[in-house]
Amino acid sequence: MTQNIIIAKNLKESLKGILNNLKCDNPFVLCDENTVKYIDELGLDNKTIITINSGESNKNLETACKIWNQLDNLNVNRNSILINFGGGMISDIGGFCASVYKRGIRFINIPTTLLGAVDASIGGKNGIDFENNKNEIGTFNLPYCTIISKIFYKTLSKEELLSGYGEMIKHSILFDKEEFFKLLKYDITKYDDRLISFIKNSVKYKDKIVSEDFKENSKRKLLNFGHTIGHAIESYQLEISKPLYHGYCVVYGILLEMIISNLLYDFSMEIIDEFSKYIKKNYGSYIIDNPKEIISRLIKDKKNKDDSKINFTLIDKDFNPIIDNYLDKDILEMIEIFNQKMKK
Amino acid sequence: MTQNIIIAKNLKESLKGILNNLKCDNPFVLCDENTVKYIDELGLDNKTIITINSGESNKNLETACKIWNQLDNLNVNRNSILINFGGGMISDIGGFCASVYKRGIRFINIPTTLLGAVDASIGGKNGIDFENNKNEIGTFNLPYCTIISKIFYKTLSKEELLSGYGEMIKHSILFDKEEFFKLLKYDITKYDDRLISFIKNSVKYKDKIVSEDFKENSKRKLLNFGHTIGHAIESYQLEISKPLYHGYCVVYGILLEMIISNLLYDFSMEIIDEFSKYIKKNYGSYIIDNPKEIISRLIKDKKNKDDSKINFTLIDKDFNPIIDNYLDKDILEMIEIFNQKMKK
Repeated sequence: MTQNIIIAKNLKESLKGILNNLKCDNPFVLCDENTVKYIDELGLDNKTIITINSGESNKNLETACKIWNQLDNLNVNRNSILINFGGGMISDIGGFCASVYKRGIRFINIPTTLLGAVDASIGGKNGIDFENNKNEIGTFNLPYCTIISKIFYKTLSKEELLSGYGEMIKHSILFDKEEFFKLLKYDITKYDDRLISFIKNSVKYKDKIVSEDFKENSKRKLLNFGHTIGHAIESYQLEISKPLYHGYCVVYGILLEMIISNLLYDFSMEIIDEFSKYIKKNYGSYIIDNPKEIISRLIKDKKNKDDSKINFTLIDKDFNPIIDNYLDKDILEMIEIFNQKMKK
Repeated sequence: MTQNIIIAKNLKESLKGILNNLKCDNPFVLCDENTVKYIDELGLDNKTIITINSGESNKNLETACKIWNQLDNLNVNRNSILINFGGGMISDIGGFCASVYKRGIRFINIPTTLLGAVDASIGGKNGIDFENNKNEIGTFNLPYCTIISKIFYKTLSKEELLSGYGEMIKHSILFDKEEFFKLLKYDITKYDDRLISFIKNSVKYKDKIVSEDFKENSKRKLLNFGHTIGHAIESYQLEISKPLYHGYCVVYGILLEMIISNLLYDFSMEIIDEFSKYIKKNYGSYIIDNPKEIISRLIKDKKNKDDSKINFTLIDKDFNPIIDNYLDKDILEMIEIFNQKMKK
């Protein structure tokens, strides 16, 4: 299994070629109110547009039903193609809706955010949130292809760029520590050719792991680094109606999981301090002021084997990732260290 | 891909062995109000029971949400096992809920109906109905195993037995025409060892095709014989609140698709007449008194390639099945012949 990921020099030409191969002359395009404005960039003569409301808070069963209803009304059949045109929310929910509609129709991802390009749109994980649990309902199912084009990234806010950059930081820690230190020194507001080169590397790292372990039985769990804590923070912030960008939650998650890695595998406290400073400067401080809410979410995490122990991917002092750490130790003291790093 | 199907001589022992292998000492058992009565037949020391309301009219997203909510409340994790204990409705919705919960947990099917044993519980198709369209939302995903035990069939009504028998008739037409004529002569109320032998053959036929073409790109479409019409009838009867057993809809579907096969491939009208008599004697007459409603459902069928043509599996005069027949001819006159056969 190798994913079909295209870093497109000319998006219109790439998409046209793919649809011709699929003998598809009228694709269905899933957009939100933000991405529908850029739909002409796809260069499609014929298309049927399905628009939903943007935002993680809409990545739920209610929106999925709206999509299925529209697919019903449009008489979509098993040979139809759905193009998910947007950020991670669009490829997550669009990929899920396509994967289970009539037991599966094909879909193409065209990410319009950096986060989508380096993470959500590649790897075949899709899903929706359910009862405040992130991606609780979903499938492992690859898109027919993913087309990455940089033309959309200039439309993004600095926060949106930093959100995607958080996943790139994670990939670099896991696969290339030299790249990690390069990323900490790079100024994302420059948005030059070096960023494109970083993106290519990031996609390459993720694709390699996904092709080796699609259904996350072993190696793919590496990619969960930062995410056990990150998802708990994201889910909590959503519930208290103060949503945080996914990549922000991931960098805070990485920091706390680095602190756990220090305790268990002697990961360097100097690097933790350097990374703390980088986070505060670029992402801003985050204080976990309600540890109980975070811990109750950790216990419900999809990755846990039994009820009491929480599964983490950690890293040792040489940046080697280690999967399937089950922590039964009280995590409160590590949250306290995290809060100190963020405060000082 | 070969399915793990066990025709159990001792259900308790078989299930115990499987759960031991899976290191599962507390499975979750999905039941309805009918099957929960027989739960002691599973011989489980520890179990957590989830009960839903029976019937196709409850095979919907609302019930799926109830199941997911309970799985949430019970802290089910990726290593948990769901046992679908019931008829086709239970294995359809339970298989779907398990397949997408946390992107997939393992499930075991233990069919308590004849229909479940020879059809729904084997082959990995699962799903729920959506907006009156049958199995509109679902996945292709195999159970960890299916355990078939005859101990439950003595609890079934004659109608329930005949419903399962309808699928067995279909399998015999497609794979062994001698068996077809044997089935027409067998009296199902006898319920003896011959029935068990017929069941074994029926499961074997289906398993062979599923292992050759899991996602129904080609050969598996054979199994749709009788189902293009059958599903339309079933969906219509559900909408007018006069639900019909699935296998009843299938035998009526087979009859109408035999009539189409007569027109296109010279399938014998004598056999059609013999089968009509058998149906009237055992299943009772069915008149399509609202052909427009049936046709509008045929057009929405999952299997269609474009909006106007309806996909059928048909049989030639030697009982050879032919997939992917796209009928654009007006089907009304064939419905008329069907109604005449049922009336006279």
